[in-house]
Amino acid sequence: MHPVELTKAFRLVNHGPTTIITSAHNGKVNIMAAAWVCALDFKPPKVTVVIDSNTYTRKLIEAEGTFAINLPCVKQIEMVKKVGNISGADFPDSDKFAEYEIETFTAQEISAPLVKNCVAWLECKIISEPNNQDIYDLFIAEVVAAHADERVFSDGHWHFDGHDDLRTIHHVAGGVFFATGKEC
Amino acid sequence: MHPVELTKAFRLVNHGPTTIITSAHNGKVNIMAAAWVCALDFKPPKVTVVIDSNTYTRKLIEAEGTFAINLPCVKQIEMVKKVGNISGADFPDSDKFAEYEIETFTAQEISAPLVKNCVAWLECKIISEPNNQDIYDLFIAEVVAAHADERVFSDGHWHFDGHDDLRTIHHVAGGVFFATGKEC
Repeated sequence: MHPVELTKAFRLVNHGPTTIITSAHNGKVNIMAAAWVCALDFKPPKVTVVIDSNTYTRKLIEAEGTFAINLPCVKQIEMVKKVGNISGADFPDSDKFAEYEIETFTAQEISAPLVKNCVAWLECKIISEPNNQDIYDLFIAEVVAAHADERVFSDGHWHFDGHDDLRTIHHVAGGVFFATGKEC
Repeated sequence: MHPVELTKAFRLVNHGPTTIITSAHNGKVNIMAAAWVCALDFKPPKVTVVIDSNTYTRKLIEAEGTFAINLPCVKQIEMVKKVGNISGADFPDSDKFAEYEIETFTAQEISAPLVKNCVAWLECKIISEPNNQDIYDLFIAEVVAAHADERVFSDGHWHFDGHDDLRTIHHVAGGVFFATGKEC
Protein backbone atom coordinates (compact mmCIF):
# COMPACT_ATOMS: atom_id res chain seq x y z
CA MET A 1 0.00 0.00 0.00
CA HIS A 2 1.30 3.42 -0.90
CA PRO A 3 -0.26 6.88 -0.82
CA VAL A 4 -2.01 8.25 -3.91
CA GLU A 5 -1.85 11.99 -4.57
CA LEU A 6 -5.30 13.45 -4.00
CA THR A 7 -5.27 15.09 -7.44
CA LYS A 8 -4.95 11.59 -8.94
CA ALA A 9 -7.49 9.91 -6.65
CA PHE A 10 -10.28 10.08 -9.25
CA ARG A 11 -8.24 7.65 -11.39
CA LEU A 12 -8.88 4.93 -8.84
CA VAL A 13 -12.60 4.90 -9.64
CA ASN A 14 -12.78 6.49 -13.09
CA HIS A 15 -13.05 3.08 -14.80
CA GLY A 16 -16.18 2.24 -12.80
CA PRO A 17 -15.11 -0.64 -10.56
CA THR A 18 -17.39 -2.21 -8.00
CA THR A 19 -16.43 -1.23 -4.48
CA ILE A 20 -16.75 -2.24 -0.87
CA ILE A 21 -17.93 0.42 1.57
CA THR A 22 -16.64 0.17 5.13
CA SER A 23 -17.91 2.19 8.04
CA ALA A 24 -17.57 2.59 11.80
CA HIS A 25 -19.43 4.48 14.50
CA ASN A 26 -19.44 4.23 18.25
CA GLY A 27 -17.76 0.81 18.34
CA LYS A 28 -19.88 -0.69 15.55
CA VAL A 29 -18.41 -1.50 12.15
CA ASN A 30 -19.84 -2.66 8.85
CA ILE A 31 -18.93 -3.63 5.31
CA MET A 32 -21.11 -3.79 2.19
CA ALA A 33 -20.67 -4.08 -1.57
CA ALA A 34 -21.55 -1.04 -3.68
CA ALA A 35 -21.40 -0.72 -7.45
CA TRP A 36 -22.99 2.73 -7.57
CA VAL A 37 -19.91 4.78 -6.79
CA CYS A 38 -18.73 7.47 -9.20
CA ALA A 39 -16.20 10.27 -9.42
CA LEU A 40 -17.73 13.74 -9.11
CA ASP A 41 -14.82 16.19 -9.09
CA PHE A 42 -11.04 16.37 -9.42
CA LYS A 43 -9.83 18.96 -6.91
CA PRO A 44 -10.66 18.50 -4.19
CA PRO A 45 -11.60 14.98 -5.27
CA LYS A 46 -15.24 14.16 -4.68
CA VAL A 47 -17.34 11.08 -5.28
CA THR A 48 -21.00 10.12 -5.30
CA VAL A 49 -22.12 6.94 -3.56
CA VAL A 50 -25.62 5.43 -3.42
CA ILE A 51 -26.41 3.80 -0.07
CA ASP A 52 -29.91 2.41 0.42
CA SER A 53 -31.80 3.72 3.42
CA ASN A 54 -32.47 0.16 4.64
CA THR A 55 -28.81 -0.71 5.10
CA TYR A 56 -26.88 -0.85 8.33
CA THR A 57 -24.06 1.02 6.59
CA ARG A 58 -26.43 3.93 6.09
CA LYS A 59 -26.97 4.29 9.84
CA LEU A 60 -23.24 4.20 10.54
CA ILE A 61 -22.12 6.63 7.85
CA GLU A 62 -24.84 9.16 8.62
CA ALA A 63 -23.89 9.06 12.28
CA GLU A 64 -20.13 9.19 11.72
CA GLY A 65 -19.96 11.41 8.62
CA THR A 66 -17.19 9.34 7.06
CA PHE A 67 -16.68 6.03 5.26
CA ALA A 68 -14.11 4.22 3.15
CA ILE A 69 -14.32 3.01 -0.44
CA ASN A 70 -12.24 -0.15 -0.86
CA LEU A 71 -11.58 -1.59 -4.33
CA PRO A 72 -11.75 -5.37 -4.25
CA CYS A 73 -10.05 -7.52 -6.87
CA VAL A 74 -10.73 -10.77 -8.74
CA LYS A 75 -9.48 -13.02 -5.96
CA GLN A 76 -11.94 -11.43 -3.51
CA ILE A 77 -15.15 -12.00 -5.49
CA GLU A 78 -16.55 -14.59 -3.08
CA MET A 79 -16.06 -12.19 -0.18
CA VAL A 80 -17.71 -9.38 -2.15
CA LYS A 81 -20.74 -11.58 -2.80
CA LYS A 82 -21.02 -12.50 0.87
CA VAL A 83 -20.86 -8.95 2.19
CA GLY A 84 -23.23 -7.84 -0.55
CA ASN A 85 -25.90 -10.41 0.29
CA ILE A 86 -26.30 -10.14 4.05
CA SER A 87 -26.95 -7.13 6.24
CA GLY A 88 -24.70 -6.24 9.14
CA ALA A 89 -27.92 -5.81 11.14
CA ASP A 90 -28.25 -9.62 11.01
CA PHE A 91 -25.28 -9.94 13.37
CA PRO A 92 -26.33 -7.88 16.41
CA ASP A 93 -23.68 -9.42 18.65
CA SER A 94 -20.95 -9.63 16.07
CA ASP A 95 -20.15 -8.04 12.70
CA LYS A 96 -19.53 -9.11 9.12
CA PHE A 97 -15.76 -8.76 9.48
CA ALA A 98 -15.72 -11.33 12.27
CA GLU A 99 -18.32 -13.59 10.65
CA TYR A 100 -16.43 -13.78 7.36
CA GLU A 101 -12.90 -13.45 8.79
CA ILE A 102 -12.18 -10.29 6.82
CA GLU A 103 -8.93 -8.69 7.89
CA THR A 104 -8.59 -4.94 8.07
CA PHE A 105 -6.12 -2.21 8.86
CA THR A 106 -6.43 1.30 10.23
CA ALA A 107 -7.27 4.23 7.97
CA GLN A 108 -5.29 7.44 8.09
CA GLU A 109 -8.00 10.10 8.44
CA ILE A 110 -11.23 8.29 9.33
CA SER A 111 -12.61 5.67 11.69
CA ALA A 112 -13.73 3.09 9.13
CA PRO A 113 -11.47 0.04 8.84
CA LEU A 114 -9.80 -0.61 5.47
CA VAL A 115 -10.01 -4.10 3.97
CA LYS A 116 -6.75 -6.01 3.53
CA ASN A 117 -5.96 -7.42 0.08
CA CYS A 118 -8.06 -4.83 -1.71
CA VAL A 119 -6.07 -2.91 -4.33
CA ALA A 120 -7.06 0.68 -3.51
CA TRP A 121 -8.72 2.64 -0.75
CA LEU A 122 -10.35 6.08 -0.65
CA GLU A 123 -11.09 7.66 2.72
CA CYS A 124 -14.18 9.83 2.41
CA LYS A 125 -15.89 12.58 4.37
CA ILE A 126 -19.57 13.21 3.63
CA ILE A 127 -20.61 16.64 2.41
CA SER A 128 -24.07 16.94 3.89
CA GLU A 129 -26.77 17.24 1.25
CA PRO A 130 -29.96 16.11 3.03
CA ASN A 131 -32.17 16.47 -0.04
CA ASN A 132 -30.04 14.02 -2.05
CA GLN A 133 -29.69 11.65 0.87
CA ASP A 134 -33.38 11.61 1.73
CA ILE A 135 -34.87 11.50 -1.76
CA TYR A 136 -32.27 9.57 -3.76
CA ASP A 137 -30.12 7.71 -1.18
CA LEU A 138 -27.30 9.67 -2.83
CA PHE A 139 -24.25 10.82 -0.87
CA ILE A 140 -21.62 13.30 -1.95
CA ALA A 141 -18.26 12.94 -0.24
CA GLU A 142 -14.81 14.45 -0.39
CA VAL A 143 -11.87 12.08 -0.66
CA VAL A 144 -9.52 13.07 2.16
CA ALA A 145 -6.89 10.34 1.69
CA ALA A 146 -6.21 7.67 -0.93
CA HIS A 147 -3.95 4.65 -1.15
CA ALA A 148 -3.26 1.86 -3.64
CA ASP A 149 -1.41 -1.41 -4.01
CA GLU A 150 1.63 -0.32 -5.97
CA ARG A 151 1.80 -3.65 -7.79
CA VAL A 152 -1.18 -2.50 -9.86
CA PHE A 153 -1.41 1.29 -9.38
CA SER A 154 1.54 3.68 -9.26
CA ASP A 155 2.42 7.13 -10.56
CA GLY A 156 -1.26 7.71 -11.21
CA HIS A 157 -1.67 4.70 -13.51
CA TRP A 158 -3.26 1.27 -13.29
CA HIS A 159 -1.05 -1.55 -14.64
CA PHE A 160 -2.72 -4.92 -14.21
CA ASP A 161 -0.59 -6.92 -16.67
CA GLY A 162 0.89 -9.94 -14.92
CA HIS A 163 -1.53 -9.55 -12.00
CA ASP A 164 -4.80 -11.07 -13.21
CA ASP A 165 -5.86 -11.88 -9.64
CA LEU A 166 -5.49 -8.23 -8.70
CA ARG A 167 -7.65 -6.84 -11.47
CA THR A 168 -10.54 -4.72 -10.23
CA ILE A 169 -14.07 -6.04 -10.83
CA HIS A 170 -17.29 -4.69 -12.31
CA HIS A 171 -20.65 -6.03 -11.15
CA VAL A 172 -23.54 -6.32 -13.59
CA ALA A 173 -26.27 -8.00 -11.54
CA GLY A 174 -26.97 -11.20 -9.67
CA GLY A 175 -23.39 -11.98 -8.77
CA VAL A 176 -22.07 -11.65 -12.33
CA PHE A 177 -18.82 -9.70 -12.54
CA PHE A 178 -16.40 -8.74 -15.27
CA ALA A 179 -12.72 -8.24 -14.54
CA THR A 180 -11.14 -5.02 -15.72
CA GLY A 181 -9.77 -6.14 -19.09
CA LYS A 182 -7.03 -5.28 -21.55
CA GLU A 183 -5.69 -1.77 -21.94
CA CYS A 184 -6.82 -0.47 -25.28
CA MET B 1 -30.65 -2.93 -31.75
CA HIS B 2 -33.44 -4.27 -29.60
CA PRO B 3 -35.43 -2.79 -26.71
CA VAL B 4 -34.26 -3.34 -23.13
CA GLU B 5 -36.89 -3.64 -20.40
CA LEU B 6 -36.70 -0.54 -18.22
CA THR B 7 -36.40 -2.66 -15.08
CA LYS B 8 -33.17 -4.08 -16.55
CA ALA B 9 -31.80 -0.79 -17.86
CA PHE B 10 -29.48 -0.32 -14.87
CA ARG B 11 -27.55 -3.39 -16.04
CA LEU B 12 -26.34 -1.46 -19.05
CA VAL B 13 -24.28 0.87 -16.88
CA ASN B 14 -23.83 -1.10 -13.66
CA HIS B 15 -20.31 -2.20 -14.66
CA GLY B 16 -19.19 1.42 -14.98
CA PRO B 17 -18.48 1.82 -18.70
CA THR B 18 -17.43 5.10 -20.25
CA THR B 19 -20.23 6.71 -22.22
CA ILE B 20 -20.97 9.19 -24.95
CA ILE B 21 -23.59 11.83 -24.20
CA THR B 22 -25.61 13.11 -27.15
CA SER B 23 -27.93 16.07 -27.05
CA ALA B 24 -30.10 18.25 -29.25
CA HIS B 25 -31.96 21.53 -28.87
CA ASN B 26 -33.50 23.92 -31.33
CA GLY B 27 -31.66 22.47 -34.33
CA LYS B 28 -28.28 22.21 -32.62
CA VAL B 29 -26.76 18.85 -31.72
CA ASN B 30 -23.72 17.76 -29.78
CA ILE B 31 -21.75 14.73 -28.64
CA MET B 32 -19.22 14.39 -25.82
CA ALA B 33 -17.48 11.62 -23.90
CA ALA B 34 -18.44 11.14 -20.23
CA ALA B 35 -17.01 8.64 -17.79
CA TRP B 36 -18.88 10.00 -14.77
CA VAL B 37 -22.19 8.27 -15.34
CA CYS B 38 -23.69 6.01 -12.68
CA ALA B 39 -26.88 4.11 -11.92
CA LEU B 40 -28.98 5.72 -9.18
CA ASP B 41 -32.18 3.66 -8.97
CA PHE B 42 -33.87 0.57 -10.39
CA LYS B 43 -37.54 1.43 -10.83
CA PRO B 44 -38.06 3.77 -12.41
CA PRO B 45 -34.46 3.58 -13.57
CA LYS B 46 -32.46 6.69 -12.80
CA VAL B 47 -28.88 7.70 -13.42
CA THR B 48 -26.48 10.42 -12.34
CA VAL B 49 -24.33 12.18 -14.93
CA VAL B 50 -21.68 14.85 -14.38
CA ILE B 51 -21.61 17.49 -17.13
CA ASP B 52 -19.19 20.38 -16.70
CA SER B 53 -20.72 23.85 -16.85
CA ASN B 54 -18.26 24.90 -19.56
CA THR B 55 -19.44 22.34 -22.08
CA TYR B 56 -21.69 22.93 -25.07
CA THR B 57 -23.59 19.78 -24.08
CA ARG B 58 -24.54 21.46 -20.81
CA LYS B 59 -26.27 24.30 -22.66
CA LEU B 60 -28.21 21.89 -24.86
CA ILE B 61 -29.34 19.47 -22.15
CA GLU B 62 -30.39 22.22 -19.75
CA ALA B 63 -32.44 23.83 -22.51
CA GLU B 64 -33.97 20.59 -23.81
CA GLY B 65 -34.33 18.63 -20.56
CA THR B 66 -33.28 15.37 -22.21
CA PHE B 67 -30.13 13.62 -23.44
CA ALA B 68 -28.94 10.17 -24.49
CA ILE B 69 -26.28 7.96 -22.96
CA ASN B 70 -24.61 5.87 -25.68
CA LEU B 71 -22.21 3.05 -24.76
CA PRO B 72 -19.27 2.99 -27.16
CA CYS B 73 -17.19 -0.14 -27.71
CA VAL B 74 -13.55 -1.03 -28.33
CA LYS B 75 -13.67 -0.35 -32.05
CA GLN B 76 -14.90 3.21 -31.41
CA ILE B 77 -12.11 4.36 -29.09
CA GLU B 78 -10.59 6.79 -31.58
CA MET B 79 -13.98 8.42 -32.06
CA VAL B 80 -14.49 8.64 -28.29
CA LYS B 81 -11.12 10.38 -27.90
CA LYS B 82 -12.00 12.88 -30.63
CA VAL B 83 -15.38 13.83 -29.23
CA GLY B 84 -13.91 13.98 -25.75
CA ASN B 85 -11.13 16.37 -26.68
CA ILE B 86 -12.87 19.11 -28.65
CA SER B 87 -15.89 21.22 -27.77
CA GLY B 88 -18.92 21.42 -30.01
CA ALA B 89 -18.70 25.19 -29.49
CA ASP B 90 -15.58 25.12 -31.69
CA PHE B 91 -17.76 24.33 -34.74
CA PRO B 92 -20.26 27.21 -34.79
CA ASP B 93 -21.29 26.53 -38.39
CA SER B 94 -21.20 22.74 -38.18
CA ASP B 95 -21.22 20.09 -35.45
CA LYS B 96 -19.04 17.25 -34.23
CA PHE B 97 -21.17 14.63 -35.94
CA ALA B 98 -20.51 16.21 -39.33
CA GLU B 99 -16.87 17.02 -38.60
CA TYR B 100 -16.07 13.45 -37.56
CA GLU B 101 -18.56 11.68 -39.85
CA ILE B 102 -20.40 10.09 -36.93
CA GLU B 103 -23.58 8.39 -38.07
CA THR B 104 -26.70 8.50 -35.92
CA PHE B 105 -30.25 7.29 -35.80
CA THR B 106 -33.42 8.63 -34.24
CA ALA B 107 -34.27 8.02 -30.59
CA GLN B 108 -37.67 6.80 -29.52
CA GLU B 109 -38.63 9.27 -26.78
CA ILE B 110 -36.20 12.20 -27.00
CA SER B 111 -34.67 14.59 -29.51
CA ALA B 112 -31.00 13.63 -29.08
CA PRO B 113 -29.56 11.51 -31.89
CA LEU B 114 -28.26 8.04 -31.00
CA VAL B 115 -24.81 7.00 -32.22
CA LYS B 116 -24.62 4.10 -34.66
CA ASN B 117 -22.31 1.20 -33.81
CA CYS B 118 -22.53 1.82 -30.08
CA VAL B 119 -23.70 -1.24 -28.15
CA ALA B 120 -26.36 0.28 -25.90
CA TRP B 121 -28.38 3.45 -25.58
CA LEU B 122 -30.33 5.00 -22.69
CA GLU B 123 -32.75 7.82 -23.41
CA CYS B 124 -32.87 10.14 -20.41
CA LYS B 125 -35.10 12.88 -19.08
CA ILE B 126 -33.58 15.26 -16.52
CA ILE B 127 -35.19 15.50 -13.07
CA SER B 128 -34.54 19.13 -12.23
CA GLU B 129 -32.32 19.51 -9.15
CA PRO B 130 -30.84 23.01 -9.52
CA ASN B 131 -28.72 22.76 -6.37
CA ASN B 132 -26.88 19.68 -7.69
CA GLN B 133 -26.56 21.12 -11.17
CA ASP B 134 -25.27 24.50 -10.04
CA ILE B 135 -22.91 23.41 -7.26
CA TYR B 136 -21.69 20.01 -8.46
CA ASP B 137 -22.43 19.87 -12.23
CA LEU B 138 -24.42 16.79 -11.25
CA PHE B 139 -27.58 15.79 -13.13
CA ILE B 140 -30.17 13.26 -12.09
CA ALA B 141 -32.20 11.75 -14.90
CA GLU B 142 -34.83 9.11 -15.44
CA VAL B 143 -34.22 6.53 -18.15
CA VAL B 144 -37.34 6.61 -20.33
CA ALA B 145 -36.22 4.12 -22.99
CA ALA B 146 -33.29 1.75 -23.40
CA HIS B 147 -31.88 -0.34 -26.24
CA ALA B 148 -28.93 -2.63 -26.82
CA ASP B 149 -27.09 -4.50 -29.54
CA GLU B 150 -28.38 -8.02 -29.05
CA ARG B 151 -25.07 -9.54 -30.15
CA VAL B 152 -23.67 -8.51 -26.73
CA PHE B 153 -26.70 -7.77 -24.50
CA SER B 154 -29.91 -9.78 -24.40
CA ASP B 155 -32.35 -11.07 -21.80
CA GLY B 156 -30.84 -8.62 -19.32
CA HIS B 157 -27.29 -9.99 -19.66
CA TRP B 158 -24.04 -8.85 -21.26
CA HIS B 159 -22.26 -11.59 -23.25
CA PHE B 160 -19.12 -10.27 -24.90
CA ASP B 161 -17.42 -13.60 -25.65
CA GLY B 162 -16.60 -13.83 -29.34
CA HIS B 163 -17.14 -10.08 -29.77
CA ASP B 164 -13.96 -8.45 -28.49
CA ASP B 165 -14.48 -5.41 -30.73
CA LEU B 166 -17.89 -4.85 -29.14
CA ARG B 167 -16.71 -4.86 -25.53
CA THR B 168 -17.57 -1.72 -23.63
CA ILE B 169 -14.70 0.50 -22.48
CA HIS B 170 -13.60 2.11 -19.23
CA HIS B 171 -11.58 5.33 -19.26
CA VAL B 172 -8.95 5.96 -16.61
CA ALA B 173 -7.38 9.25 -17.69
CA GLY B 174 -5.46 10.78 -20.58
CA GLY B 175 -6.91 8.56 -23.27
CA VAL B 176 -6.11 5.29 -21.48
CA PHE B 177 -8.97 2.80 -21.58
CA PHE B 178 -9.54 -0.74 -20.41
CA ALA B 179 -11.93 -3.05 -22.22
CA THR B 180 -14.56 -4.81 -20.15
CA GLY B 181 -12.77 -8.09 -19.45
CA LYS B 182 -13.53 -11.69 -18.64
CA GLU B 183 -16.64 -12.74 -16.76
CA CYS B 184 -15.58 -13.94 -13.35
